[in-house]
Amino acid sequence: MTLEILSENKSHGGTQGVYSHASAETGTAMTFSVYVPPHESGAKLPVLWYLSGLTCTHANVTEKGDYRAACAQHGIVFVAPDTSPRGPDKNGDDVPDAEGEYDFGKGAGFYVDATQAPWAGHYRMRSYIERELPEVLAANFPVDLARQSITGHSMGGHGALTLGLRNPDRFRSISAFSPIVAPSKVPWGEKALGRYLGSDPKAWREYDAVALVEDGAAHPHILIDQGTADPFLDEQLQTHRFAGACDAAGIDARIRMREGYDHSYYFISTFLAEHVKWHAGWLG
Amino acid sequence: MTLEILSENKSHGGTQGVYSHASAETGTAMTFSVYVPPHESGAKLPVLWYLSGLTCTHANVTEKGDYRAACAQHGIVFVAPDTSPRGPDKNGDDVPDAEGEYDFGKGAGFYVDATQAPWAGHYRMRSYIERELPEVLAANFPVDLARQSITGHSMGGHGALTLGLRNPDRFRSISAFSPIVAPSKVPWGEKALGRYLGSDPKAWREYDAVALVEDGAAHPHILIDQGTADPFLDEQLQTHRFAGACDAAGIDARIRMREGYDHSYYFISTFLAEHVKWHAGWLG
Repeated sequence: MTLEILSENKSHGGTQGVYSHASAETGTAMTFSVYVPPHESGAKLPVLWYLSGLTCTHANVTEKGDYRAACAQHGIVFVAPDTSPRGPDKNGDDVPDAEGEYDFGKGAGFYVDATQAPWAGHYRMRSYIERELPEVLAANFPVDLARQSITGHSMGGHGALTLGLRNPDRFRSISAFSPIVAPSKVPWGEKALGRYLGSDPKAWREYDAVALVEDGAAHPHILIDQGTADPFLDEQLQTHRFAGACDAAGIDARIRMREGYDHSYYFISTFLAEHVKWHAGWLG
Repeated sequence: MTLEILSENKSHGGTQGVYSHASAETGTAMTFSVYVPPHESGAKLPVLWYLSGLTCTHANVTEKGDYRAACAQHGIVFVAPDTSPRGPDKNGDDVPDAEGEYDFGKGAGFYVDATQAPWAGHYRMRSYIERELPEVLAANFPVDLARQSITGHSMGGHGALTLGLRNPDRFRSISAFSPIVAPSKVPWGEKALGRYLGSDPKAWREYDAVALVEDGAAHPHILIDQGTADPFLDEQLQTHRFAGACDAAGIDARIRMREGYDHSYYFISTFLAEHVKWHAGWLG
């Protein structure tokens, strides 16, 4: 579990790092970023996971997210994984990709463990983030894995909601920006889940926040911010489906429609510090 | 003076825009970004200029600067110009460039009006920022040009100091991150000033903050942040030269050496909100 340091920069009194390691789950090198705020020697800090959207890597939020001031203030470690396996596997072969498709393959892992060829061998972002990366964190950073929360954007909002709803004891709070809440029902999700998981939609339900709620999953602390000027709202995001499922299940999710905001990091960076503060309230 | 909107995104209650216009000074299209914070209709807001460093465009600080929350809080318009002319001029010819040289030509205008061929025709960043762009701002944005301040990074810190020291009545306060304070004495500056302005160092003095102070320029409100882990500090930046010149001239500049910080936007974004707040105090 050797960690390669790609970069470390002092920021807001702490360290913003970018790291690479050999992942057993994906069979490739995986890159991720970690911000460790200023802290007392020997302290173990709570963790906020941030899962990114289609076409993104760790870099988008790391450069554009404006989260470090808030994480420094609240003493929270911020972890941003990549969105898919990339590059050569351990045999030197490149991982399968869907060339020219921004919404499938590299940069579009959808936080699933694929079951279908040729994706099943490497596209294991669920297990990578649920199981492997937490161990890497614990071995290398001053983290307290008894205190974790999760957030994300778009496809990563889908990731945050589904990981959080499947693991309510692990994540104390869940938030999302512009999440894909019902991938089974929208073009991005139908394409990705169908090809990663096969054509039977029953296999998709554990990767669909609305379906998880319909099937009994719940969490007491859910926060969603969604821009009203988001060009993907009507076709791909359909926030109302999650609001409806939570209403039907008696889940008190806080869903805020943000007037005039779009799908970009100009939106995310407006409210990410507020999300950090909200999570900090549950992380103690 | 038609302005082309390249993008506008709502952020922190205001609008982050990127614009292009035909510049008479450079003879090319010029791109710049403007953040307009939320404000009452009809209000005219103070302006903070941000001049960028070598290789940068408007985009670096716009994406990585973390300034919008502070500008929204203090009601300040934030303007980030490009660092040189680029692209075809009005005759369709590309502007001269020094291919393969990151520190001269495109991306490296050094905020001078070049006098030497082939640069003199287009490399007029001093007049562009001192004269032309303020008129474009006044005609298109809710700004009060009686209230302006200026900041910048590295080559742009040099730009902020020299523009500010030459125009103390126009800029109420001057700040800089990691500025090149004495370009006449360091490799980046000797190369750029020599080729843009000719070999006589007398012609360089109005573009050298230390020389300007030696020649009698002054300003009551100067703030500099410089990281101690900046790899360019010893050879190119030499902050101590400006501290010495200010001491000799009786100028009370506030120069802070920031322990462990480097030359990157991880450093700038740590302190830019604080600079915005400091300028806001002088902008009223």
